[in-house]
Amino acid sequence: MSPLHVTPVPLEKCSLLMNHGPTVLVSAQHGSAKNAMAAAWACVLDFGTTPKVTVVLDKSTFTRGLVEASGYFALQLPTKQMATLTYALGSESAKDVPNKLEKQGVTTFAVHGIELPLIDGCVAWLACKLLPEPNNQETYDLFIGAVIGAWADDRVFRDGRWRFEEAPDALRTIHHVAGGNFFVTGEVVQG
Amino acid sequence: MSPLHVTPVPLEKCSLLMNHGPTVLVSAQHGSAKNAMAAAWACVLDFGTTPKVTVVLDKSTFTRGLVEASGYFALQLPTKQMATLTYALGSESAKDVPNKLEKQGVTTFAVHGIELPLIDGCVAWLACKLLPEPNNQETYDLFIGAVIGAWADDRVFRDGRWRFEEAPDALRTIHHVAGGNFFVTGEVVQG
Repeated sequence: MSPLHVTPVPLEKCSLLMNHGPTVLVSAQHGSAKNAMAAAWACVLDFGTTPKVTVVLDKSTFTRGLVEASGYFALQLPTKQMATLTYALGSESAKDVPNKLEKQGVTTFAVHGIELPLIDGCVAWLACKLLPEPNNQETYDLFIGAVIGAWADDRVFRDGRWRFEEAPDALRTIHHVAGGNFFVTGEVVQG
Repeated sequence: MSPLHVTPVPLEKCSLLMNHGPTVLVSAQHGSAKNAMAAAWACVLDFGTTPKVTVVLDKSTFTRGLVEASGYFALQLPTKQMATLTYALGSESAKDVPNKLEKQGVTTFAVHGIELPLIDGCVAWLACKLLPEPNNQETYDLFIGAVIGAWADDRVFRDGRWRFEEAPDALRTIHHVAGGNFFVTGEVVQG
């Protein structure tokens, strides 16, 4: 069962969750092995009825192996209050610390029919099916996914738009710069 | 000659300019034709001594043709005070409005040895050489560039880091969500 506040986002709206370029947590599982890592280099690739995303997964990461083995991954948006956790998930590898998620106190939930560990406390989740592109993966560490499901925390995203201004600041998304320094997603400006 | 405040950023630091996922303006030129468009879907692909970026350029855009013809493009970061201009550059096509840049009051500068129109008023610029990947370009509208030069406005980026808190808010970068609504890059949080 999904945690309170997790509500489905129609696929044709899911690009709105990532258009603003936040840092994501990438999670995947294969058999009983689960893992998650942070990635600042994730981006929308397509929207509408064929939403897609890109994410860069270094060859040194344990999560990459799970994505390649299972053919699925999730991108999810951590919050300001998860900045320390996000940096830890991006700094530490499950290759060195096999119980990385447990050590960091990460808990996950699953959505019926999709075998992916979705991370509690995030404010948006995109379940993705890997579109294998061996040249991109080998040459650039670049992975492409078709979004097959999307959800958001309805305190900050509902009726097709972000509403950070109506919720506690701790629920704002974050944008990693370097060395554990993040920018918080700020005020709205109308162009 | 470069405008005041435009200072070189070492290539091994240039990923810091885009790690936080801001919306960019993409510019290119071929012969006497120049153009620029807005793109929310741009991302760092690699850093260190081989910095690379990705950007999605729809087949309907005039700028894409200039990139394909010349083999070069620039990504640059517009500011809060450029939100209206950024939305206009992303909404209007030079295919319909041939004098698009002039109409929008966009002026550009060039850096010696690099034939690219860099847009005045932005706070960071990355000059890129297209790394042709026909499958990505045709299938996904996805373009990869190797960064060959980078510059930043030293009022907001110097000595290898962003310093938005030391400059006017109008110089903060922006993150497009939808329909001309942008988030401004917000406060720093240490993870």
